[in-house]
Amino acid sequence: MSALQLAASTGISGNLGAVAYGLAAIGPGVGIGLVFGHSIEAMARQPEAMPIIRQNMFLGFALCEVLALLGLVVPFIFS
Amino acid sequence: MSALQLAASTGISGNLGAVAYGLAAIGPGVGIGLVFGHSIEAMARQPEAMPIIRQNMFLGFALCEVLALLGLVVPFIFS
Amino acid sequence: MSALQLAASTGISGNLGAVAYGLAAIGPGVGIGLVFGHSIEAMARQPEAMPIIRQNMFLGFALCEVLALLGLVVPFIFS
Amino acid sequence: MSALQLAASTGISGNLGAVAYGLAAIGPGVGIGLVFGHSIEAMARQPEAMPIIRQNMFLGFALCEVLALLGLVVPFIFS
Amino acid sequence: MSALQLAASTGISGNLGAVAYGLAAIGPGVGIGLVFGHSIEAMARQPEAMPIIRQNMFLGFALCEVLALLGLVVPFIFS
Repeated sequence: MSALQLAASTGISGNLGAVAYGLAAIGPGVGIGLVFGHSIEAMARQPEAMPIIRQNMFLGFALCEVLALLGLVVPFIFS
Repeated sequence: MSALQLAASTGISGNLGAVAYGLAAIGPGVGIGLVFGHSIEAMARQPEAMPIIRQNMFLGFALCEVLALLGLVVPFIFS
Repeated sequence: MSALQLAASTGISGNLGAVAYGLAAIGPGVGIGLVFGHSIEAMARQPEAMPIIRQNMFLGFALCEVLALLGLVVPFIFS
Repeated sequence: MSALQLAASTGISGNLGAVAYGLAAIGPGVGIGLVFGHSIEAMARQPEAMPIIRQNMFLGFALCEVLALLGLVVPFIFS
Repeated sequence: MSALQLAASTGISGNLGAVAYGLAAIGPGVGIGLVFGHSIEAMARQPEAMPIIRQNMFLGFALCEVLALLGLVVPFIFS
């Protein structure tokens, strides 16, 4: 069997780092959705509390987002 | 068959540690979103209870985050 | 074909123990978020019940966390 | 080519039993969080029903936990 | 090169049956948590309906649990 034929036989290529980011994006994706969903419902019920809600909404968004961005950096640490 | 040719044939590369972090980030990502989402709704309804809410919100955030950061450290333990 | 050259050809490295911890951290991550999220909402509505809530909150947190920490220990059992 | 040299060449190591426990811990982790989260909210609203709530809370916790502990035992059955 | 030596050379060990149980336990773990969580909240609100709630709670628990126990038996069917 020549090497060229073997190459054609395993059709998958790529780096596990991309899979790692994909997995790390699942949780924050749901989490940010929960933060904004609850915030919007709270805003609609108490429009006068909007400044407090907005401030905490972006705080929650940022702290969720960090987990996904770490998933982008981590493959470089382990490579 | 030369080894170099075989190398080109298996296209996947990377370290399972990155995948492990990706998996460990799913749960805390959803968990932090739940903590902030419920906290924001509680703040909007009871603005006078904001100091208690905020204090417990950051407690919950920190205890969730720990699980994700452990996922960053664990691959070094098993390597 | 030398073995060393083959080693360079399979690009994935790492230990399944780290993946196992990553998987075991998903559930507790969501679970701790649920416990804290519901507790904070309960605290905001019934501030006078805070001692009971806090006591059960940490009970729930500890019993969730155990599952993740078991995931850290289990790979050593099976190795 | 000796087999020992090939062993060193595949970079993944570990036992699937640890992965099995990790998967089995996902569900109970979320489940225990749901049981405690709903119990704490019920306690805050009806503090006089606390003995009934606590009794059923620990019943639900135990029946969830069983699934995770089975995940610890199962790899020994199949090995 | 003998096949036996190659078997020893790949660093992963274990049986896929354990992984199958692990996957099968995810759903019931969450499901049992939902059944108990909602039942406890219903008990606290209508304590006089407790016999009916408990009876249906255990019915829901048993029908969830069956799926996880099937995951324990299925690998023997396919072996």
